[in-house]
Amino acid sequence: MRIAFIGLGNMGAPMARNLIKAGHHLALFDLNKEVLAELGALGGQVSASPREAVAESDLVITMLPAAAHVRSVYLDDDGVLAGIRAGTPTVDCSTIDPQTAREVSKAAAAKGVDMGDAPVSGGTGGAAAGTLTFMVGASDALFSALKPVLEQMGRNIVHCGEVGTGQIAKICNNLLLGISMIGVSEAMALGNALGIDTQVLAGIINSSTGRCWSSDTYNPWPGVIDTAPSSRGYTGGFGAELMLKDLGLATEAARQARQPVILGAVAQQLYQAMSLRGEGGKDFSAIIEAYRKPQ
Amino acid sequence: MRIAFIGLGNMGAPMARNLIKAGHHLALFDLNKEVLAELGALGGQVSASPREAVAESDLVITMLPAAAHVRSVYLDDDGVLAGIRAGTPTVDCSTIDPQTAREVSKAAAAKGVDMGDAPVSGGTGGAAAGTLTFMVGASDALFSALKPVLEQMGRNIVHCGEVGTGQIAKICNNLLLGISMIGVSEAMALGNALGIDTQVLAGIINSSTGRCWSSDTYNPWPGVIDTAPSSRGYTGGFGAELMLKDLGLATEAARQARQPVILGAVAQQLYQAMSLRGEGGKDFSAIIEAYRKPQ
Amino acid sequence: MRIAFIGLGNMGAPMARNLIKAGHHLALFDLNKEVLAELGALGGQVSASPREAVAESDLVITMLPAAAHVRSVYLDDDGVLAGIRAGTPTVDCSTIDPQTAREVSKAAAAKGVDMGDAPVSGGTGGAAAGTLTFMVGASDALFSALKPVLEQMGRNIVHCGEVGTGQIAKICNNLLLGISMIGVSEAMALGNALGIDTQVLAGIINSSTGRCWSSDTYNPWPGVIDTAPSSRGYTGGFGAELMLKDLGLATEAARQARQPVILGAVAQQLYQAMSLRGEGGKDFSAIIEAYRKPQ
Amino acid sequence: MRIAFIGLGNMGAPMARNLIKAGHHLALFDLNKEVLAELGALGGQVSASPREAVAESDLVITMLPAAAHVRSVYLDDDGVLAGIRAGTPTVDCSTIDPQTAREVSKAAAAKGVDMGDAPVSGGTGGAAAGTLTFMVGASDALFSALKPVLEQMGRNIVHCGEVGTGQIAKICNNLLLGISMIGVSEAMALGNALGIDTQVLAGIINSSTGRCWSSDTYNPWPGVIDTAPSSRGYTGGFGAELMLKDLGLATEAARQARQPVILGAVAQQLYQAMSLRGEGGKDFSAIIEAYRKPQ
Repeated sequence: MRIAFIGLGNMGAPMARNLIKAGHHLALFDLNKEVLAELGALGGQVSASPREAVAESDLVITMLPAAAHVRSVYLDDDGVLAGIRAGTPTVDCSTIDPQTAREVSKAAAAKGVDMGDAPVSGGTGGAAAGTLTFMVGASDALFSALKPVLEQMGRNIVHCGEVGTGQIAKICNNLLLGISMIGVSEAMALGNALGIDTQVLAGIINSSTGRCWSSDTYNPWPGVIDTAPSSRGYTGGFGAELMLKDLGLATEAARQARQPVILGAVAQQLYQAMSLRGEGGKDFSAIIEAYRKPQ
Repeated sequence: MRIAFIGLGNMGAPMARNLIKAGHHLALFDLNKEVLAELGALGGQVSASPREAVAESDLVITMLPAAAHVRSVYLDDDGVLAGIRAGTPTVDCSTIDPQTAREVSKAAAAKGVDMGDAPVSGGTGGAAAGTLTFMVGASDALFSALKPVLEQMGRNIVHCGEVGTGQIAKICNNLLLGISMIGVSEAMALGNALGIDTQVLAGIINSSTGRCWSSDTYNPWPGVIDTAPSSRGYTGGFGAELMLKDLGLATEAARQARQPVILGAVAQQLYQAMSLRGEGGKDFSAIIEAYRKPQ
Repeated sequence: MRIAFIGLGNMGAPMARNLIKAGHHLALFDLNKEVLAELGALGGQVSASPREAVAESDLVITMLPAAAHVRSVYLDDDGVLAGIRAGTPTVDCSTIDPQTAREVSKAAAAKGVDMGDAPVSGGTGGAAAGTLTFMVGASDALFSALKPVLEQMGRNIVHCGEVGTGQIAKICNNLLLGISMIGVSEAMALGNALGIDTQVLAGIINSSTGRCWSSDTYNPWPGVIDTAPSSRGYTGGFGAELMLKDLGLATEAARQARQPVILGAVAQQLYQAMSLRGEGGKDFSAIIEAYRKPQ
Repeated sequence: MRIAFIGLGNMGAPMARNLIKAGHHLALFDLNKEVLAELGALGGQVSASPREAVAESDLVITMLPAAAHVRSVYLDDDGVLAGIRAGTPTVDCSTIDPQTAREVSKAAAAKGVDMGDAPVSGGTGGAAAGTLTFMVGASDALFSALKPVLEQMGRNIVHCGEVGTGQIAKICNNLLLGISMIGVSEAMALGNALGIDTQVLAGIINSSTGRCWSSDTYNPWPGVIDTAPSSRGYTGGFGAELMLKDLGLATEAARQARQPVILGAVAQQLYQAMSLRGEGGKDFSAIIEAYRKPQ
């Protein structure tokens, strides 16, 4: 299949590589010439603009840092919608606000293009391994068209509803995740301060009503879960700055919807304080350090 | 075995019934004459005081509403420690602060009595069904002595460490639970306000990093989990007032330990606001109603 | 003086009226034809576009609802910067984010126009009475040029620094105001619940370290201050929706600056909850109702 | 007058000294023999117990660290109520929970003693200078009896209502103070991060709706107020640990009254985090350091 792939950053590049490996013909665009050259050498076709990349393609995928880039890549004079053929299945995998996703999709519809959103989880590791989760907001027909291709980059392809619901699913999940991780941090640090063994406490929580992914899979207390970032100095994993980005999207969407998110807003500020202290590059589970005596 | 059982309220009475059913001889005490008479009719021996109840017993169990009652039942002139024989295994199943648990246990040790703490989870339903979880703080020897008896009232008997750690485990778990439930409420209500189907959203969260007991087993959105209190008008379950009690114990223990619990403190206040509105008798998952437009 | 005045809403219209009364010749623009006609009848000159309004003017004032309107009014083809003469002193009185203020000012500078920001406080009452406070971000020269005109609409004309600092001053002050009002609400409601007379409590706070404008001038407890909105059913005053707007600007500016505002974020969510309950039209001091038993 | 003064710590000792200086005959008690000897040398009469101290006294004053001490000093076998003559005006100046104040006063009433509460503000400096504020909970008759004596130790003697209301006034004021200080810290730090001069910002706030004691008298930004602790490295002043004590009393009283105090609870946790970092000995305005980039 001829696929246009636009946005070849930390996530986009390995995703595109998996599609090339799967035998597709890729038309590529990014502002970074180096990564373009590198993927060109693997057989991709380097384009001069999003418009050029999509011109002959049967499917379009974009993976960009933020809403402003999505608007620009789709709506500019040299953008996707200026070059795309009506009827081409299109999906944006960026994590952005649901409203922008809907607005750009509407602009696409005006050109006869069915465009969905499909933000991912799984990080750069999942992108390289082809084990990402895609949360897809799309019509049934578009979802059917996209699914086989997304499966070549990921393991779970979840249909969340109409366009925009992929973004909604992601920010709601990550809002809860950001809260849970702080909840686990408070519980573990309190238990430790009061004198219970943290391994024992984690075991009890994990078989009781406090059980959650942030405790049983990604526990922030060092040594409780060998494979968690907490057991390797909070390196790797999901950086606090990325969590901040998602909480920013969630609280902003909540603000527009006049929907209170009290713990979510506090969580955002606590990660913000972590960022202010210069710790934003660490895995987000390092938030627990704010609850421990400085060593 | 001759067991003294003191404190026959909503939890204590069904627990004692299970021990009578299991064939033990029970010496009973409570201030409520009716429940004493009722359990006496099942074969228990009614005592005039804690002191009298424990005098001939091989094991002592107490189940009381709060720390003040525990102090009084153990330390008063007519109390447990005035009548107990040295060497009698003793366990308090009340949910109280860890410090009181340790202090009363110390007073017991001075009389040659090894006393542990074993707060429970599972509610009145679990007490009746004999499926409680016991979080036990006790020496190894005491734990071994208690375990067979606790198993006649519960399903999971967890050894948390020395005396006091049972309370610590319970309040840390419930601190996290109180936070998680609000986190799930915010995520579900936000998703709904933004336009995703709540059943779909819950499905995504439950197979992703937001996964937790409050979402996959006890989801606060009506209809998501058929067996959850949210699907029957927030009746039954774990009342908000009980959650308030446990969060009060957690934040007070944290205060004494100079340990911050930021989300925990906010959670406590949000359940407090629910109580102020006269909703404290509902299941604690009804906290989600604060995040929904009044109907 | 020939003054272009663009944006004639609840605030802009009375401000423009005061300038007409002071003898200036006004060139007016707004999308609302009625208000245009009304002010035209007072002697103002109705324009067909911002561009037309500014063409012959010696000074330009804008007063718009949000950043998007400011961008559009200044930068569109028919906008201020398309028609303005180089050297014309220009000021935007809208309350918007500091970054937009700076960006639009930069675009103005490229046309040889010195443009400042001067958001106001004092509400529609102050606008009508000509007693507004203007927080002005502008060069010294521009401030000198603007001051005499602003004085015809307000009482306090404060120079805050370079362009953007007017907005910063306003959102920082209102961030604190939003927090203080909730702090006073919690203190008053707690005192009442514990049994002290609220009038006495307010008196003590107002002569002690809790003293603040939200307590001594605008106390949210009904009857404490006769002239406060709390003493007339929370009508008039500064609506909760306006407070929400300003807290939204503050927390968004904080997010971009990686600056935590923990209490500010909680305050925003509590006003949001008030809005969700359908109370957003009340004066913001009605937040105290969330702390009182439903009547 | 013969006055019994019990509790001669950092606050009590200078208060007692002022009464000796004013010509009263003091009967003194404290567990610390050194301070007893020191005040004895100034003419006070050293007693062996509270009971002995009050036996011949015309008025009784106590100044103790916490509720447990108050209970013990009044209710023990060797305590105040065991020795006091019926009709002796009695006042406790400790800062404790309102409920204990009421309970001990009730026990006093049973002995024919009218006992009030009169917690102070003004710190050790005010105690030495005789410029304290007394918030007095007492009957009208008792207030009249106490006032002339309290005036020899303080400047503002405020009658708050019946017994307990002195404590209520103090904890409500300090709840608000703890919140306001963090509010000012967030506003000042945000303004600084966004680029406004902090001196200018403070000036604007102080003449606007954000105005409060924490900004205009005790501003946490160094250099804004020359006489504030922030301008001398956060030394002296009102220690964060003392603020923590008062916020603990406020949130605990709120808990018992089922009264939410959301911002108050967050404020308490933020000072707690400050204490965890080992900064609890600094003036409470040093909370602003949590909002600034580490230097």
